Amino acid sequence: MDHAVRIQRLQSELEENDLHALLVTHLPNVRYLCGFTGSAAALLVAARETVLFTDGRYRTQAKEEVKGARVFVARKSPLVAAAEWLAARRKAGQQRVGIEPESITAGMRDRLAAALKGKVRLRSVPPLVERARMVKDADEIARVRRAVELCASLFPVACKKIRPGVTEVEVAAAMEYEARCAGAEGMSFGTILAAGTRSAIVHGRASGARIPRRGFVVCDFGVILAGYCSDRTRTVHVGRVSAEAQELYEAVLEAQQAAIATVRPGVTAAEVDGAARRVLRRRRLARYFTHSTGHGLGLEIHEAPRLAAGQNQKLEPGMVVTIEPGVYVPGKWGVRIEDVVVVTASGCEVLAPTDKELIII
Amino acid sequence: MDHAVRIQRLQSELEENDLHALLVTHLPNVRYLCGFTGSAAALLVAARETVLFTDGRYRTQAKEEVKGARVFVARKSPLVAAAEWLAARRKAGQQRVGIEPESITAGMRDRLAAALKGKVRLRSVPPLVERARMVKDADEIARVRRAVELCASLFPVACKKIRPGVTEVEVAAAMEYEARCAGAEGMSFGTILAAGTRSAIVHGRASGARIPRRGFVVCDFGVILAGYCSDRTRTVHVGRVSAEAQELYEAVLEAQQAAIATVRPGVTAAEVDGAARRVLRRRRLARYFTHSTGHGLGLEIHEAPRLAAGQNQKLEPGMVVTIEPGVYVPGKWGVRIEDVVVVTASGCEVLAPTDKELIII
Repeated sequence: MDHAVRIQRLQSELEENDLHALLVTHLPNVRYLCGFTGSAAALLVAARETVLFTDGRYRTQAKEEVKGARVFVARKSPLVAAAEWLAARRKAGQQRVGIEPESITAGMRDRLAAALKGKVRLRSVPPLVERARMVKDADEIARVRRAVELCASLFPVACKKIRPGVTEVEVAAAMEYEARCAGAEGMSFGTILAAGTRSAIVHGRASGARIPRRGFVVCDFGVILAGYCSDRTRTVHVGRVSAEAQELYEAVLEAQQAAIATVRPGVTAAEVDGAARRVLRRRRLARYFTHSTGHGLGLEIHEAPRLAAGQNQKLEPGMVVTIEPGVYVPGKWGVRIEDVVVVTASGCEVLAPTDKELIII
Repeated sequence: MDHAVRIQRLQSELEENDLHALLVTHLPNVRYLCGFTGSAAALLVAARETVLFTDGRYRTQAKEEVKGARVFVARKSPLVAAAEWLAARRKAGQQRVGIEPESITAGMRDRLAAALKGKVRLRSVPPLVERARMVKDADEIARVRRAVELCASLFPVACKKIRPGVTEVEVAAAMEYEARCAGAEGMSFGTILAAGTRSAIVHGRASGARIPRRGFVVCDFGVILAGYCSDRTRTVHVGRVSAEAQELYEAVLEAQQAAIATVRPGVTAAEVDGAARRVLRRRRLARYFTHSTGHGLGLEIHEAPRLAAGQNQKLEPGMVVTIEPGVYVPGKWGVRIEDVVVVTASGCEVLAPTDKELIII
C-alpha cells in the first residue's frame, strides 16, 4: 500500500479541478489515502500538505496507522477542527476547498461553513478518490484474492448444510461461523440464502424458511478480510432436476461465461453487460434478468464501475468487478452465478475459479 | 404498532415548528412512522396527508408493510419524486418543508433543491421523530424485551466457549451462530470480546488474540430481533482471581446498581450518570471510567437519551436505556457490566435480570 503515491496522485488533480485542497470525509476514501481505519476522520489534502483530523479516542491508533499525512487530534469534531485549521491559514480568503457531497450530511456542511465564517469557498466536487480507487494496485488485488479465496471456502460448508427441512438461516449461520473462525472481520453484506420459490427474490436474505424437498437454492455471500470485500454466488438444486431447470441453469452459466469472455481493457462496462444480456435474450429469458451484470468491489462491496446498460466507463487493467447475471421467474424460481474477476493486460482472471456444473443435493 | 397515531402526533407538531410538511429521510424514522423497511424511501408528512416515496424494487413490499401513508412508486429517486410532487402542488410557493439535516447528504439536499426549482422553502429542523422515539409504546417494549432475552441466552454460550487458548473471535462466532439460528436478523453491533489486557480497550472487537490463562474477559454483545436492538455486557474472569480484581469487579457492579437504583421518571440523564460516577470516585476509579453511563436503544442501537454529564433530558416512563459503567486501566485490565432497563411509573425494570456475581472460568 503506497499511501504517499495515492496522495500525490490526488494532489496532482487538485489544480485541474481548480481546487486548493480537498476535504475527504468518506471513510473508505480516508482509509485508501492514508491507511486510517477509525470512525471519526476528515483528511485534508492540499497541494503541499496532508492532515488527518481525528479525535482523542483515536490518538494511538492514528499514530500507528496513518501514512503520508500529519495527524491532528481534535478536541471537537474532526470536521470543525479541519475548518478552523483552514480558516486560520494565511490567504484563507483565496482558498477553494472541495467537499465530497455524497458523504457529508447537510448538517455537517452547515457546521463546516459556520466554522469557516465565510473565509474559504466550499465546492462540491466529482468523486475523484472513487475514480482512483477503481484501478487496484498489486497489494489490493492480493487482498481481494485472499478475501475471495476465503469466501470460496464457505461454499462447501453451505453444500454440506443444505438439506430439505433445514432453515435458510441455519445454512447462513454455518457459513458465517466458518468465516469468522477463519479470520474474516465480518460478512461484506447480509448473506443471501434463498430456497425454492424464494430463489426468485433477487436479494432474498437468509430467512427462517425451510429448504423444500425440491428446487433451486441461491447462495450469495461475501467476507471482509484485511479490509477488502469479496462477493460470490452459487446456485445449487435440491432433489430431482427437471429438464427445464437444467436448461435455465445452463442459460445463466452461458450468459456468465459470455460476459467473462468479453472482459478486457478498452471494452466498456455496458458491453460486458450486453454480452450477458444477449445470451439470455436468445433464450427468451432477458426480461427475467432484472439487475445489472456486475459492480466493482474493494474497500466497499459496491464500487465503480457498474456493469450496466449505458455505462461508458472503459475497463482498465487492475479493475476488479463481479460478473453475476441471474434469471428470476416470480413465484417460481431463480438462478444466479457470480464470480469476481480482475482485468488483466489481455483479458481477465477469475479469482478462485471452479467448475460450475449444477450441483444436485 | 399504531403507525397512524405516530404520524398524527408528528402532524400535530408541524404547526408549532412553523412547517407545512416534514420530509423524513432517516430510514429508522421512516420505519417508525409507517412500517416500511426498504432501503429506498422518503416519507412526506404534511398536515393532512402522508406519502411514502420508494422505487420499483419495493412495490410489493411497500404495499404489504406501509400503514398510515399512501405509497408512490417513483421511476427516479424517491427524493426527487417527493420534490416533484411538492413542486406540483397548489400553493407550492408558500410551503415550508422541513428536512432532517443529519440524515440527508449535501448532494441529496442540492438535488432536492434543484428539483423543487425554488418553489418550496427547505428548512433544517430539530430531530422531531427521534424525540418521539425516545418513549417506547407497549409493542416496542415487548420487542426490546424479546431481543434482550435472546441476547441474554448467548452469554451461557460464551461461558462454555471461553477457555485459555481459544481465540476471542471463536467465542464471538459461537455466540453469533446461536443468535442467527434463534432468529436474529443480525447482531446490533460488532461483537466485543476482549480478553486479558485487551479488556482495557473500551471497544475491543473480537480479534484473533487467544484468551490468556488468567484475566478478565469483557463480552459486550447484542442482537436485532423483529427490528429492535439489544445490548448487554458481562465480564468474566479466567483463572485465579486476585483480591484486587475481585474489588475492581465489585466496584463496577456497585456503580451499575447505584445507577439502576437512580432511574425513575423525572430524574435527569445526567443524574443517572452521576450516580455511577460517584461510586467509582469514592473508590478512586473515576478517572478510568472514560465513557458515558448509557444510551437509549430501540430501532437503532444508539438513540436518545444519552446518560452523560450535562444531559438535562428527564427520564419518562417507556424510555429504554442501557446502564453500563466500566473501568479500564490501560495495559492492565478492564471490567464493564451492562443491562437494558425500561423506565416505569415508579422506577425501572431490568430486562432479563440475572445474578451478577463474578463468574470464574
